[in-house]
Amino acid sequence: MEAKNLWRFLVLPIGVLLFLLLTWFHLPNKGALDCNLYSGWCTSKNRFYSSSQANQIKKPSFSSYNNQHHESEIPQHPLDPLTIQEFNRVRTILSTHPLFKSSSKYTLNSIVLEEPDKKLVLKWKKGDAPLPRKASVVAVVKGVSHVLTVDLETGLVTDYEYSVSGYPTMTVEDMVGVLEVPLKSIEFNRSITKRGVKLADLECLPISSGWYGTQVEENRRLIKVQCYSKEGTVNFYMRPIEGVTALVDMDRKEVVTISDNGENIPVANGINTDYRYSIQKLNGELRLLNPISLEQPKGPSFTVEGHLVKWANWEFHVRPDPRAGTIISEVKVRDPDTSELRNVMYKGFTSELFVPYMDPTEGWYFKTYMDAGEYGFGLQAMPLDPLNDCPRNAYYMDAVFASSDGTPYLQPNMICIFERYAGDIAWRHAECPITDLKVTEVRPKVTLVVRMAAAVANYDYIVDWEFQTDGLIRSKVGLSGILMVKGTTYENMDQVPNQEYLYGTLLSENIIGVIHDHFITYYLDMDVDGSDNSFVKVKLKKQETSPGESPRKSYLKAVRKVAKTEKDAQIKLKLYDPSEFHVVNPLKKTRVGNPVGYKLVPGATAATLLDPEDPPQKRAAFTKNQIWVTPYNKSEQWAGGLFVYQSQGDDTLQVWSNRDRSIENKDIVLWYTVGFHHIPCQEDYPIMPTVSSSFDLKPVNFFERNPILRVPPNFQDDLPVCKAHDSA
Amino acid sequence: MEAKNLWRFLVLPIGVLLFLLLTWFHLPNKGALDCNLYSGWCTSKNRFYSSSQANQIKKPSFSSYNNQHHESEIPQHPLDPLTIQEFNRVRTILSTHPLFKSSSKYTLNSIVLEEPDKKLVLKWKKGDAPLPRKASVVAVVKGVSHVLTVDLETGLVTDYEYSVSGYPTMTVEDMVGVLEVPLKSIEFNRSITKRGVKLADLECLPISSGWYGTQVEENRRLIKVQCYSKEGTVNFYMRPIEGVTALVDMDRKEVVTISDNGENIPVANGINTDYRYSIQKLNGELRLLNPISLEQPKGPSFTVEGHLVKWANWEFHVRPDPRAGTIISEVKVRDPDTSELRNVMYKGFTSELFVPYMDPTEGWYFKTYMDAGEYGFGLQAMPLDPLNDCPRNAYYMDAVFASSDGTPYLQPNMICIFERYAGDIAWRHAECPITDLKVTEVRPKVTLVVRMAAAVANYDYIVDWEFQTDGLIRSKVGLSGILMVKGTTYENMDQVPNQEYLYGTLLSENIIGVIHDHFITYYLDMDVDGSDNSFVKVKLKKQETSPGESPRKSYLKAVRKVAKTEKDAQIKLKLYDPSEFHVVNPLKKTRVGNPVGYKLVPGATAATLLDPEDPPQKRAAFTKNQIWVTPYNKSEQWAGGLFVYQSQGDDTLQVWSNRDRSIENKDIVLWYTVGFHHIPCQEDYPIMPTVSSSFDLKPVNFFERNPILRVPPNFQDDLPVCKAHDSA
Repeated sequence: MEAKNLWRFLVLPIGVLLFLLLTWFHLPNKGALDCNLYSGWCTSKNRFYSSSQANQIKKPSFSSYNNQHHESEIPQHPLDPLTIQEFNRVRTILSTHPLFKSSSKYTLNSIVLEEPDKKLVLKWKKGDAPLPRKASVVAVVKGVSHVLTVDLETGLVTDYEYSVSGYPTMTVEDMVGVLEVPLKSIEFNRSITKRGVKLADLECLPISSGWYGTQVEENRRLIKVQCYSKEGTVNFYMRPIEGVTALVDMDRKEVVTISDNGENIPVANGINTDYRYSIQKLNGELRLLNPISLEQPKGPSFTVEGHLVKWANWEFHVRPDPRAGTIISEVKVRDPDTSELRNVMYKGFTSELFVPYMDPTEGWYFKTYMDAGEYGFGLQAMPLDPLNDCPRNAYYMDAVFASSDGTPYLQPNMICIFERYAGDIAWRHAECPITDLKVTEVRPKVTLVVRMAAAVANYDYIVDWEFQTDGLIRSKVGLSGILMVKGTTYENMDQVPNQEYLYGTLLSENIIGVIHDHFITYYLDMDVDGSDNSFVKVKLKKQETSPGESPRKSYLKAVRKVAKTEKDAQIKLKLYDPSEFHVVNPLKKTRVGNPVGYKLVPGATAATLLDPEDPPQKRAAFTKNQIWVTPYNKSEQWAGGLFVYQSQGDDTLQVWSNRDRSIENKDIVLWYTVGFHHIPCQEDYPIMPTVSSSFDLKPVNFFERNPILRVPPNFQDDLPVCKAHDSA
Repeated sequence: MEAKNLWRFLVLPIGVLLFLLLTWFHLPNKGALDCNLYSGWCTSKNRFYSSSQANQIKKPSFSSYNNQHHESEIPQHPLDPLTIQEFNRVRTILSTHPLFKSSSKYTLNSIVLEEPDKKLVLKWKKGDAPLPRKASVVAVVKGVSHVLTVDLETGLVTDYEYSVSGYPTMTVEDMVGVLEVPLKSIEFNRSITKRGVKLADLECLPISSGWYGTQVEENRRLIKVQCYSKEGTVNFYMRPIEGVTALVDMDRKEVVTISDNGENIPVANGINTDYRYSIQKLNGELRLLNPISLEQPKGPSFTVEGHLVKWANWEFHVRPDPRAGTIISEVKVRDPDTSELRNVMYKGFTSELFVPYMDPTEGWYFKTYMDAGEYGFGLQAMPLDPLNDCPRNAYYMDAVFASSDGTPYLQPNMICIFERYAGDIAWRHAECPITDLKVTEVRPKVTLVVRMAAAVANYDYIVDWEFQTDGLIRSKVGLSGILMVKGTTYENMDQVPNQEYLYGTLLSENIIGVIHDHFITYYLDMDVDGSDNSFVKVKLKKQETSPGESPRKSYLKAVRKVAKTEKDAQIKLKLYDPSEFHVVNPLKKTRVGNPVGYKLVPGATAATLLDPEDPPQKRAAFTKNQIWVTPYNKSEQWAGGLFVYQSQGDDTLQVWSNRDRSIENKDIVLWYTVGFHHIPCQEDYPIMPTVSSSFDLKPVNFFERNPILRVPPNFQDDLPVCKAHDSA
């Protein structure tokens, strides 16, 4: 997450709780909540106010969403997420469990499918008896975190204790509950009002406080709350009330301290920061383009059965996850020579994020977000906007998540799946235009994209998995949304003394866009033609020729090195010490004897430069290398640790990897981190054009030959006949 | 170039010359040349056989191409390429010039527009009197290279001498003429036939020989010729006759030496290497997808007037160039706040390529191609294939180039221009779904692409310039086509002795894909809001906090450093020493006082690791850094030097830059090199799936704010109504 998402929750206390409970605030009249459009919210609301209705779920009935009958859904695949009925079964089982029965004070921080053993899943085939269904529950009971496995058949509950630092992902109530806390403080309210901001215009964010080893942090969950003025704009992020921070005890709902050190910093005016079309078109619409659309008159070429996607030569399983966002599983590609479906990857997802801001001052030093483990990357993935987030003919997949009392609720349109043709070329060659070599052969490139967009407070992360028919998988992350900005007294750079450093860019009067990094760490459980794989570095090294050997003095020589243990696979990328990174199946060779493999191909990226002993960097030690390889271990999935909130860095990928276990000819997991340095610029204001980066998983001697040699080109008669809508 | 393109020319000697002159070869009956489809070739043919018809040009009359009346074209813009009438005028002027009049032996290696002075072009506006038209001619007369300026109005010819090493770009006749030479040698023919290859099945390539400082290279133009068998496949590249190389004197048309050292290496069988659809569909078509198409029922949003393209907020000039391929000039973007067209880049093009193969042995060490200067990157850009190379609604721009006697000829469909919508997102934000913050705003991303595909013998380079409405320019190069492979006795890796190194990957029986690099060096004459610019490195450096300053130990600090001289701007990229690279206008600031600029954003790339003293690396010294900045100098355009063929590295970007001239607050040129390491894999056989990389030129405090804040989202009613072709 970035600034702390929690939009979903901010408004609740400000809008609803305050409205209902503290009616001495003057609030603008809010329209009725449109449950047709925002069922996710409606069900969240149910969760808070109608716990007696907890067994019900509001069914979306609006035409723009797939009107799936989620209530009657039954799992069709061992990796299908929990169904509504299963969520309710979990609640029933837990309600009679001693742990919860005896306690009135508990939260269910997470309820998701407990995946069956990998071996069982790999063996399972359609038509087989369903594998036993289990749920994995993270619960906090009387301040103690539990990880429970709930057997849905037997009702058996197993309770695991984890001796790691940190707390589970915040619940909605955690995040919402803290926002009202500072308002109980006269000191805090005075800080706000003396800046000329009406309390009714307040919009506050719950900001994870990190962990710095201080006494105040011991044995309690803390959070920072900072606020903004939304007067005159929905883009309240551009109107920070700089210097006012409340440190709040999340469980006691008490203010620990309030700091107020930016009295002289005005709240920026927010003029023309509201990016909504309805507002912007008042400034004159900028209509630059005729309509353009991806059209498929015969429909898309993929099918989705439950969560199983089949497209072209690909087959894989997609499910929404409250923490990871999208989980892609059992990725298989069909070999055109044998027609066999071959395993590529057992599981891939965004395991953790790390977003440190580069400002060590009082109101900013703690902004070092770990969005997946602190806020839930999937929880923040709002419904996608058809025709804009995804093109026509996209399929939208809903999520069913559990609220903190276990009630299931619907997150509609959370993931979209669509085919993409961007005018690109899959392969081509033009030959000599004469006689028997009169050849121009070109094949257009069409791909399949699985997308979600997690709007973690200000920032929006667009997470794509893109599949190409040539066997390549591209994992791409796009950053858009809104900057986290800092108030300043300056209105122009010429006012800034020569020696003063702003920690960012003056974007507009009184607004600094603070420099920050983004790291997105992917878990990639590669299973190239089977689970036992090896990781091979193919280094390119300069080789000098011997005297008299050649008129050349040097050439590049490829040197293969199999990584024996984890430390062999802790890799920092270097332009002048290049390698290819292969995951091969050492037991399988191509016809001519090359090891069958997939390679990781990094794209543009950035590395963390923070001091390894800096507390945020210690907690996010998984960003220390771009590549890691670990032996498969079911419990090692979250790069920052199972409990990331206020974690101390004792359960990270780095800690696991430093055990230096053997990784040769084993079931191995590849980890890759995509990084961005972001020095904001004025073009990012008041909303940022998308910046993207990606990496590829690419077949390397996996196929015997180009697997799309036999695909046809486009012919005129394949293409649709279209009319403009208004002339149709 | 890769292996040496010259498809266009190979076939001529083999097919036509041999057929006509050496009728003792049995040749398959070839169909008549289809001038409707291959007018470029037809006119080339005219050039060779009908020099009396030199003032005519065959006009394409086929419906798939824009039937433009090139004969009557007149220039509309100072940077418009020479017209047919102008080419003919050049020929007329030169025919009476003493240099040519007195010599029967000359070649015109290049005739292109001599650009008017930059200042004049910048001042010129539509409606102004045309600027005087001049041609720049590179001619070789009696073995001496001349660079001439021909004033088309006055007929005045100015002759410049350049005291640099090397020879001009080869002419078509150079390349074609050498291919028959080895066949005069009984020794050569015996080498071929003893390998069981019929001379009628021969396909030979003219391979630039580089420069290695040996005596044999002195004062003569040399080329290597290697041959393949095309028996049973158009993909002759996969059937190398390994170990047979003829060294040929290009001017005397004499064999210098023949080496034959691969007698025991069989010619690979070439089975299933023919990638043509007509052949591949015999194996069973792999139809994976329903049709998908980019549809624009109201037509594209761009216009092309002559060579001037206007699209959305962009305006720029595009022209084909025989050496560079596509030249983009006078790139301007409209500021949405002021409606003013603002300068971004005066000129951008691919200045040179460097493609060293990593094999120092006899038949391979010299393969270190510099495609633009040796073969002509634009000359090799074949007609694009509509619906496959470019989507529907693309505009196709023809090129008119001159053959070596000055005759103009048409290269139809050389460049395409199209709008692209790939399902991507220009910007988005989703907010809290309640009350006044019920916001999800998303804008789809549509871009404009200018594309050419240069098929330089085996390799195909797809060169895109992509323009985004947010002000970003993406320059992308895609590599496809066919590998340059090496014959081997091995059929399986298990036959290869442990200590033997293959210089590549065994791709199929008897075929090794040799490791190589690709470097594409771009010339980017940035003019950010005017010609006087500065280059600024914005370094991100780790800053430790002082004791007690902060709970944080470190953060990243941005440190701006203006490059004073060229050496300050010789940059090797480092992941752990990151910078942003800004070209700013030091005289212009934004409202809040930031310098107006554009930044260069590298994508994934590779660096050369060759020894700087290795002769190929010396000649390609422009690849030594990823970034260079030079002061604008009209004569410094070709990174490898004006005369690249057999050049010795005395006229490269490195040589110019090492003069260390001042570059602060000057008209400066930015150079960027995109690199690829390519370790071939079996998927690249027998034709390679496209691999791409790119870099961006991105506004950085150029606009006051996000310039596409006011663009509308897609609405259902904007999109077309389509039917499948067969149901329409």
